[in-house]
Amino acid sequence: MSKGLPKRSEDYSLWYNELVKRADLAENSAVRGCMVIKPYGYSIWEKMQAQLDKMFKDTGHSNAYFPLFIPKSYLSKEASHVEGFAKECAVVTHYRLKNSEDGKSVVVDPEAKLEEELIVRPTSETVIWSTYKNWIQSYRDLPLLVNQWANVVRWEMRTRLFLRTAEFLWQEGHTAHATKQEAIEETEQMLDVYAEFAEKHMAMPVVKGIKSANERFAGAEETYCIEAMMQDGKALQAGTSHFLGQNFAKAFDVKFATKEGGLDYVWGTSWGVSTRLMGALIMAHSDDNGLVLPPKLAPIQVVIVPIFRSEEELEAISVKAKEIMKKLRALEISVKFDNRDTHKPGFKFAEYELKGVPLRIALGPRDLANNTVELARRDTLSKESVNLNEVEIDQKIKGLLEEIQENIYKKAFDFRTEKTTEVNSWEEFQDVLENKGGFVSAHWDGTSETEEKIKELTKATIRCIPLDQEKEEGKCVLTGNVSQGRVLFAKAY
Amino acid sequence: MSKGLPKRSEDYSLWYNELVKRADLAENSAVRGCMVIKPYGYSIWEKMQAQLDKMFKDTGHSNAYFPLFIPKSYLSKEASHVEGFAKECAVVTHYRLKNSEDGKSVVVDPEAKLEEELIVRPTSETVIWSTYKNWIQSYRDLPLLVNQWANVVRWEMRTRLFLRTAEFLWQEGHTAHATKQEAIEETEQMLDVYAEFAEKHMAMPVVKGIKSANERFAGAEETYCIEAMMQDGKALQAGTSHFLGQNFAKAFDVKFATKEGGLDYVWGTSWGVSTRLMGALIMAHSDDNGLVLPPKLAPIQVVIVPIFRSEEELEAISVKAKEIMKKLRALEISVKFDNRDTHKPGFKFAEYELKGVPLRIALGPRDLANNTVELARRDTLSKESVNLNEVEIDQKIKGLLEEIQENIYKKAFDFRTEKTTEVNSWEEFQDVLENKGGFVSAHWDGTSETEEKIKELTKATIRCIPLDQEKEEGKCVLTGNVSQGRVLFAKAY
Repeated sequence: MSKGLPKRSEDYSLWYNELVKRADLAENSAVRGCMVIKPYGYSIWEKMQAQLDKMFKDTGHSNAYFPLFIPKSYLSKEASHVEGFAKECAVVTHYRLKNSEDGKSVVVDPEAKLEEELIVRPTSETVIWSTYKNWIQSYRDLPLLVNQWANVVRWEMRTRLFLRTAEFLWQEGHTAHATKQEAIEETEQMLDVYAEFAEKHMAMPVVKGIKSANERFAGAEETYCIEAMMQDGKALQAGTSHFLGQNFAKAFDVKFATKEGGLDYVWGTSWGVSTRLMGALIMAHSDDNGLVLPPKLAPIQVVIVPIFRSEEELEAISVKAKEIMKKLRALEISVKFDNRDTHKPGFKFAEYELKGVPLRIALGPRDLANNTVELARRDTLSKESVNLNEVEIDQKIKGLLEEIQENIYKKAFDFRTEKTTEVNSWEEFQDVLENKGGFVSAHWDGTSETEEKIKELTKATIRCIPLDQEKEEGKCVLTGNVSQGRVLFAKAY
Repeated sequence: MSKGLPKRSEDYSLWYNELVKRADLAENSAVRGCMVIKPYGYSIWEKMQAQLDKMFKDTGHSNAYFPLFIPKSYLSKEASHVEGFAKECAVVTHYRLKNSEDGKSVVVDPEAKLEEELIVRPTSETVIWSTYKNWIQSYRDLPLLVNQWANVVRWEMRTRLFLRTAEFLWQEGHTAHATKQEAIEETEQMLDVYAEFAEKHMAMPVVKGIKSANERFAGAEETYCIEAMMQDGKALQAGTSHFLGQNFAKAFDVKFATKEGGLDYVWGTSWGVSTRLMGALIMAHSDDNGLVLPPKLAPIQVVIVPIFRSEEELEAISVKAKEIMKKLRALEISVKFDNRDTHKPGFKFAEYELKGVPLRIALGPRDLANNTVELARRDTLSKESVNLNEVEIDQKIKGLLEEIQENIYKKAFDFRTEKTTEVNSWEEFQDVLENKGGFVSAHWDGTSETEEKIKELTKATIRCIPLDQEKEEGKCVLTGNVSQGRVLFAKAY
């Protein structure tokens, strides 16, 4: 923390990398592409997990756990699935090491070769549907509503902390249904859960939409997604929910006796969000001073920093601080009292700004004398002095935390609105992408060829076909061919 | 559930395997040695996790996450560590598959060979201490108190659900300290946390002790453990806490500037419990009717089963059931109302017995007329009719759940007492092991040779040198050599 962060306006990418490291969120490990999630970063992830887990359970899902390893042959059972994942997977070929001949190191024991190689799961559809085959016989076994919290591995060539790592943490829901309609409703319900989590908890507005065929999950019939806008005008896919049709049921022969006495393949969904959300959270709100965390996900919501020159002053301040802490904790507000005497208040202020603590209370001898505290907001960097004779401090802080949560959302929402542009010509399209960035709402003729051509020319991809837009006929921005509606283009993470 | 469980007295091992499967706890997967933890089993594990996690945080620890993969060379850095783990590990050698020449399957792409093989972590000391090197410079960075919830892989040849699986879930604490004394205190503190968890929450009495050198963790200077007694008279190691000395600090060159201005290696500990605890929980308490769960870990503490012959009866019962549920939930007692009309009450009774729900309420038309309910305890299989005019049902049930928790513990405690035998001759030793089983408390001369000889002759190992026993000189039960105290022998899982 000796030097300030790089500025977003100068080098957004460097700013992000430095912020992730300096705020003690994560760092690269010795294993290429694998990150270490540090305690402070992990405590934010835990808050996300707890909230999501509650929302999954409230919608009737249970957690379970499936194997880390997938037999190679399983991957191949769903044709487009293997196409999508085989090219970037970690392969286990042996199960033992032995001492090298010179005794100085260990080497793979060639005699301990597996008969069939195992893939470290990049996603678990195959191993789960092979299990569901035994769990599902009749319509009475349906729906099956299961979620898993797990690590997965995709051997990405270019990695970035949280955003794209070889190993990442995520949850993956895998459900099985008796009817197509019910499976589609589940897919949409989980998309709504993700959107609500993003907006209400992460304070991050998202567009709900459908992916084009090019961007669809390998093995899905339809991929729904939520897309967020980062401060550099690039989009970030924050969660996906897939309607799998009967694809995996067919690949793994999962049939059920219907109510009507027939036999049919089961309908499936899968849906997931990952530690990538940490990257989204950081990039959506933070500033040149450091993290800005929405109060609902902040591990520490309030920090109290004492201003003191002697042991006696600290002691007197401590009494007051403990009073305040007790009141805040009664309202389930998390609060930390930083009474270290090894660091100056200014250092502490900078540290908690860097770490995104939403509210800071400074408490000095003059405050004690006047029965006041100084309150500083992380989101606006504004300060105010509060007279404790006039104001209930716990209610005041509760209200402020709610206000901060709303304000962070509003700021991101306004930014996204400003960064969303309707265009009607190819010139305009290029100009906006090049000079303004953000979401570009444009007509598209619906073909993969056009989509690929646009990507080639501009690096922009179709982020989604938004769910909540009105039907509008028009002409494709590139080809001029007929279009059934606008889609959102953007450069993306 | 068409047939009853095998009886413990006839085939304990079969009884265990069948119970795990029929109670929907876990099953084997298609990957050798890897299990699927089913939703009901996982919900018990989640209760264990939540309680342990709270206890870790209450003792000052934070969670973090470290990579799944360990570079092969890291394993070798601590000599006894690699000796202990290299022989049973999953080795990743490639990072890509490709289509086979005939296009019909996928094969490992020989061009995607890793320069250095990666080991799927069997435990994380090496990758964590290589990280700690960057986190620790000065005594001000200490202690470092970190825990990780993760999956690990040990390529065991003979596996059993929960007890010994190739992949398992666990937590591993890894702490770093400035002094030897502090590290030993941490090791002992975490042992106490495990013992408290086992006894207060799992209702399973444990002996706290120290492992002999033979049974010590590969890389530790001292391994502390908790040992439990199963119903078949075999011991089960339920948790370990290791004092690592400076072994890993030396292996990874982790030094710190001391308060006094010197430079010293850091002192370390590690400690863990795993999904093996699920096996212990099952085997410690369950009976020939199924699971017996301590109320503190039961996902469903109370089930209400309606007895009805018509829709109208069910409706009237539902009103009463909902009243009771509301009261119980206000006391944070988890309760389920099973109003399925597809199954008879008798079927439901058997199902909840199998699944170990601590208390069952049966509610029929006669109960409504008399304002009574029938309460059945899972632990004692006893029933009583409770008059709701005389008894506050919520308080009654709260009290009963506490009583059940205590009773299960007491039963296990008495069993262990009965199964612990002091012996003073080799004949006695063999006789007790052969005919009675359980813990055998005997003198031992302290040598590895004697320990191994005894294991060879009887299959019994030293489970631990108990911490809380009085000093007593004696003669080794096998060699007659001088002994400094008794140790506990047993056959073990």
